[in-house]
Amino acid sequence: MSDPTPTPTEPSGRQRFSRRALLGGAGVGVVAAAGGVAIGRATAAEDTAGSKIVPFRGDRQAGIITAAQDRLHFASFDVVTDSRTDLVAMLKAWTDAAERMTRGEETVPGGAVDHGDYTPPADTGEALGLSAANLTLTIGFGPGLFGPSASDPARRDRFGIAGAKPAALVDLPAFAAERIEPSKSFGDICIQACADDPQVAVHAIRNLARMGLGVVAVRWSQLGFGRTSSTTQSQETPRNMFGFKDGTANLRAEQTDLLDRWVWVGAGDNPPAAQWMTGGTYLVARRIRMDIEPWDRANLLEQEQIVGRLKGSGAPLGQEGEFDTPDFNVTSYGAPMIPRNAHVRLAHPDNLGGIRILRRGYNFTDGSDGFGHLDAGLFFIAFNRDTGKQFVPMQQVLSRQDAMTEYLIPNGSSVFAIPPGVRAGEWWGQQLFEG
Amino acid sequence: MSDPTPTPTEPSGRQRFSRRALLGGAGVGVVAAAGGVAIGRATAAEDTAGSKIVPFRGDRQAGIITAAQDRLHFASFDVVTDSRTDLVAMLKAWTDAAERMTRGEETVPGGAVDHGDYTPPADTGEALGLSAANLTLTIGFGPGLFGPSASDPARRDRFGIAGAKPAALVDLPAFAAERIEPSKSFGDICIQACADDPQVAVHAIRNLARMGLGVVAVRWSQLGFGRTSSTTQSQETPRNMFGFKDGTANLRAEQTDLLDRWVWVGAGDNPPAAQWMTGGTYLVARRIRMDIEPWDRANLLEQEQIVGRLKGSGAPLGQEGEFDTPDFNVTSYGAPMIPRNAHVRLAHPDNLGGIRILRRGYNFTDGSDGFGHLDAGLFFIAFNRDTGKQFVPMQQVLSRQDAMTEYLIPNGSSVFAIPPGVRAGEWWGQQLFEG
Repeated sequence: MSDPTPTPTEPSGRQRFSRRALLGGAGVGVVAAAGGVAIGRATAAEDTAGSKIVPFRGDRQAGIITAAQDRLHFASFDVVTDSRTDLVAMLKAWTDAAERMTRGEETVPGGAVDHGDYTPPADTGEALGLSAANLTLTIGFGPGLFGPSASDPARRDRFGIAGAKPAALVDLPAFAAERIEPSKSFGDICIQACADDPQVAVHAIRNLARMGLGVVAVRWSQLGFGRTSSTTQSQETPRNMFGFKDGTANLRAEQTDLLDRWVWVGAGDNPPAAQWMTGGTYLVARRIRMDIEPWDRANLLEQEQIVGRLKGSGAPLGQEGEFDTPDFNVTSYGAPMIPRNAHVRLAHPDNLGGIRILRRGYNFTDGSDGFGHLDAGLFFIAFNRDTGKQFVPMQQVLSRQDAMTEYLIPNGSSVFAIPPGVRAGEWWGQQLFEG
Repeated sequence: MSDPTPTPTEPSGRQRFSRRALLGGAGVGVVAAAGGVAIGRATAAEDTAGSKIVPFRGDRQAGIITAAQDRLHFASFDVVTDSRTDLVAMLKAWTDAAERMTRGEETVPGGAVDHGDYTPPADTGEALGLSAANLTLTIGFGPGLFGPSASDPARRDRFGIAGAKPAALVDLPAFAAERIEPSKSFGDICIQACADDPQVAVHAIRNLARMGLGVVAVRWSQLGFGRTSSTTQSQETPRNMFGFKDGTANLRAEQTDLLDRWVWVGAGDNPPAAQWMTGGTYLVARRIRMDIEPWDRANLLEQEQIVGRLKGSGAPLGQEGEFDTPDFNVTSYGAPMIPRNAHVRLAHPDNLGGIRILRRGYNFTDGSDGFGHLDAGLFFIAFNRDTGKQFVPMQQVLSRQDAMTEYLIPNGSSVFAIPPGVRAGEWWGQQLFEG
């Protein structure tokens, strides 16, 4: 530990810390130094060995095809100001703080423990000593930011951006068998925080919410305790609360041609006013309560017939391995081995005109429901290039025909436009507000 | 991989798996075998190298002084039957399943993927492929199990155990500044599931809840995303949602004399009828919503004066290091450096007649509160030998005088008697029901 140089102890016993001086060259967040203890978070330069830092800037936002981290905190905000100036100022401040937090740093240098001028600390501090934990922060803009939307049909165009609204950013239609609760749905801005340490994700959302005081208010937020999707070919397929591997046939980061076709917005997708979305994508978030108690009383054969896959291996019925191609024509005793209303059949691209989406969901458990059951399920997140042409028709088929629907209660629903990545010097939304 | 021996593929394409045959000698939970994929969870013998298994049986229950795992799922159950036979049968089945799950196994061998006689799977499956993750399952019995209690003052002694109720198992009195919600409080039986992987903890609670159908119903449950306490001397002190290190002065597993005095119930504590509690302890659970937005608007000096410690290092005000002894007599400019209403002063044993407790709390975030704020705070868990003589007087002082109270809204409150460990061949509660 070289040159810790804490400043002399003040009368109150407090010390000033210089994170950079104290932590320079050390790969840890908490360092015992002669005469005191220095506190800080690991920085980019220090963390390269463990590679727990996902770059914040680039052509695409991180957190979309980034290898899915284990934990999630997703927040949806209402914009509570009519001031474009305030909103833009917040987005600029958010961008700086978000970039720093993804590096494992406080929202501003020394923000948690610098007494400075006795203003409130600029960082809430609960992530001190924790690594970056592969944190990604992904921003999105909801329909309501541009004017009328499902959550507020009378809203006007407060920020003068109605003309920049991409045609594909529209509220979802009603689907069969859903019970959407407005308190778990909609929103003007979303932040998806994914990390391998949930405290790092919660810290990030909490600090952005705090910085947004007077500009945004948390409309709803959702923790996910375990990922249910893989987004790279090297990730093992995790299991959802039905106990099944989920997302075996998901798109992967390596499938760049398919991503270009089904996820990333192309320049030809929008008129000039909405070119800020080129290279972006659209996020669909659905809070899907699972009726796990009735599910757990279904026998294994029934469960596998509903899913269309084996519970153990994840193989499509009639096949051997998880990644074997489903054969929907195989029959057993005269009936299709994969039933006509099986999830895997209905959701398969071959049966949806080739449609693909990129899934990135998480398991959740939010206490109990007051009737003796756990409130648990899947927080479904998907990215697609045109929600109306991909997620919507897929969900229209599934919500009407999928045998699994009997065990699902979608009660939260939102859509957001996810702009492309922030390039050097840019701030979140700059192309929308200044484009 | 030796001798995977899957049985021949059945007509439906399903396979039978023998976990022990398939996984023998392998240290992983998912094994690709010739001709298919075998699924199971790691077993005790296989996992000794990683040492992710905490022994289930012993003189004490695990999960009390066990090195605090990172994640929590805590469930409180109402017993919904009057049948002692059914309750005992459930406790026996729970014990077997709990022991297996702490070893990283299904609730019953092959429980998740064995088709057997086409009954519902005995394990819900979402932990397949995951390790034991240091899972501990700790059971407790609430006052209501023995008859009248705060949650049901008219309840009778349904199970003929009123005479075995230890005198120390009484509902908490009302404290100042709390807003207790019955839907987040009380319960006849609790299970504390701690693990380093939240999906492992959730899986355990969910499967016990499921096995208890008709006997117990979930009254409330709480996820904790990050530990706020250390229970061994080698663990670093984590931070709570106020951004401060929490529990620096906690009791530790190594302090066996102090644990005997302040945590473990002694033989002399109870009459013969309640000797089943000897070697056990009492758990206090408090869901403490933190008013984090006002807190975040307090300046650092104020925050540190409220806590009585430095935010950065955790040192008591006037001292240098986290573990330095607080000196409550030091003054600065004529005033006590640690204010008279500082948390660390009021909670310190020196100012509470020497009282100690063992803390084991977790940070939580449960969505938002509908008013633009995150619903976040501390799920406080403490163990003590006599709640009425330890936690209660401590909380009476803190709830009335602690400056921190201004930022705390306790809205859940429960007490449970935690019996001693289960010895070989025993089942949870055996000494209570058969003692």
